[in-house]
Amino acid sequence: MIIIGEKINASLPGVKAMIKKRDVAALLELAKAQAAAGAKFIDVNVATDTGSHDDELQSMKWAVETIQQHIDTPLCIDSADPAVLEAGLEARRGRATLINSVKADNEHLAEVVPLAYHYESLLVGLAMDKTGIPKTVEKRLKACEEIAGACEIHKVPVESMYFDPLVLPVSSDVKQGVVTLDTLSEIKKRFPGANTVMGLSNVSYGLPKRPRLNRAFLHMAIYAGLDAAIMDPLDEELMLAVRTGEALMGKDRFCRRYMRAFRKQEAVV
Amino acid sequence: MIIIGEKINASLPGVKAMIKKRDVAALLELAKAQAAAGAKFIDVNVATDTGSHDDELQSMKWAVETIQQHIDTPLCIDSADPAVLEAGLEARRGRATLINSVKADNEHLAEVVPLAYHYESLLVGLAMDKTGIPKTVEKRLKACEEIAGACEIHKVPVESMYFDPLVLPVSSDVKQGVVTLDTLSEIKKRFPGANTVMGLSNVSYGLPKRPRLNRAFLHMAIYAGLDAAIMDPLDEELMLAVRTGEALMGKDRFCRRYMRAFRKQEAVV
Repeated sequence: MIIIGEKINASLPGVKAMIKKRDVAALLELAKAQAAAGAKFIDVNVATDTGSHDDELQSMKWAVETIQQHIDTPLCIDSADPAVLEAGLEARRGRATLINSVKADNEHLAEVVPLAYHYESLLVGLAMDKTGIPKTVEKRLKACEEIAGACEIHKVPVESMYFDPLVLPVSSDVKQGVVTLDTLSEIKKRFPGANTVMGLSNVSYGLPKRPRLNRAFLHMAIYAGLDAAIMDPLDEELMLAVRTGEALMGKDRFCRRYMRAFRKQEAVV
Repeated sequence: MIIIGEKINASLPGVKAMIKKRDVAALLELAKAQAAAGAKFIDVNVATDTGSHDDELQSMKWAVETIQQHIDTPLCIDSADPAVLEAGLEARRGRATLINSVKADNEHLAEVVPLAYHYESLLVGLAMDKTGIPKTVEKRLKACEEIAGACEIHKVPVESMYFDPLVLPVSSDVKQGVVTLDTLSEIKKRFPGANTVMGLSNVSYGLPKRPRLNRAFLHMAIYAGLDAAIMDPLDEELMLAVRTGEALMGKDRFCRRYMRAFRKQEAVV
């Protein structure tokens, strides 16, 4: 399982302040801690609800340059704004990068997919279109097909794609867990060679004991074909859940990583 | 999820003694506690390693008659010996019963499947043959096909069947988790109308923190199409895992059972 560390996200109050203050030490600490905990990519999202387009662009440049001066972990450049994505990619030139993200909207596809080609980057494709997140498996797959079509036109190989089936809360529509998992498993069938990714925590919105739902959903998703998760690698229980899932899926030779993870956790039940 | 309570099993030392002593109070307590905790079937396995064939037969009659005099919960008559199964079924006459189990062995099929027809009972079919548990999905499915064939001959409807894909430890062969889950999902496709069942705990044999592996495997299996689990309904964490899985699978309207389960568990993390 590829872990994408989600903690550098300006929607979190502490991170927002850190970015505004250009707090190098705090930013690096957050990046290093996630890498040390096993993140293979560090997501960088610097969009604040109050900041301007230019604020976000300058913050992205600063954050990417600051982090990569000190650690080699690949970054995941995360913005809804193609110009901000490009600023991050420009700063990353020549280093491994995941673009987060593009959706099945012609205008957005025309702006973002060529960036993936030009900067030889990996690309997250969201199973949604202009109008939002479809409620059915078929329509989410249609969105993926449109993204895959744009990738073909712009010569981005399917192996560079990370499709995200997207997750809606089961508390508002009890069928949404299955819709996400079935979309995931269909993506693996329709786009052999492509990867899958998702965030987990939306599924449990509005319910008690959310971490339990998130971990259970992770295990179901791992069986459905999940390759990567956008998550908090500092959440020890969630990381143990990843190791448990890998052991059960035969992705942990002789269950060695599982056993090592629990050797450090004697106190854990 | 249909819970089959597994605790009346003479391979457990306390239960073995209870059966030998014909301890009515202890037997009833075990049956009632499992029913109260949510078991829809109570498994009854009275085979001891030292007892004779006739011992097991007499014990089965005693246990079935004793339990059903006091509670109405359906029983799961569990023996490798067709004569013991029949003694249990005879004692159960006219009441809901699950036979546990038959395997894809011609002689065994010829003895056990007609019992399911004659006593209008449900039947667990194990994905194994004379030679043991196959290591591949294809061979396990072949065993299920043979069982389904015998059911057709003996007029046992497919809706009465509970196919068990069987579980081997991932510690000895890391691919076995996936083999079980893929067998499960294929059974649901090939035998529409049939049910699936399995025990969980074998998967984690030989590894630390077994309950974590068992719960994670349960969640994967629920997504793969598991209808029933042979498990300990007095294991609160495992029962909470069942409720969590049901909520995520859209099998819990408005997530009400999930919320109720956790309302009783304020202390649980």
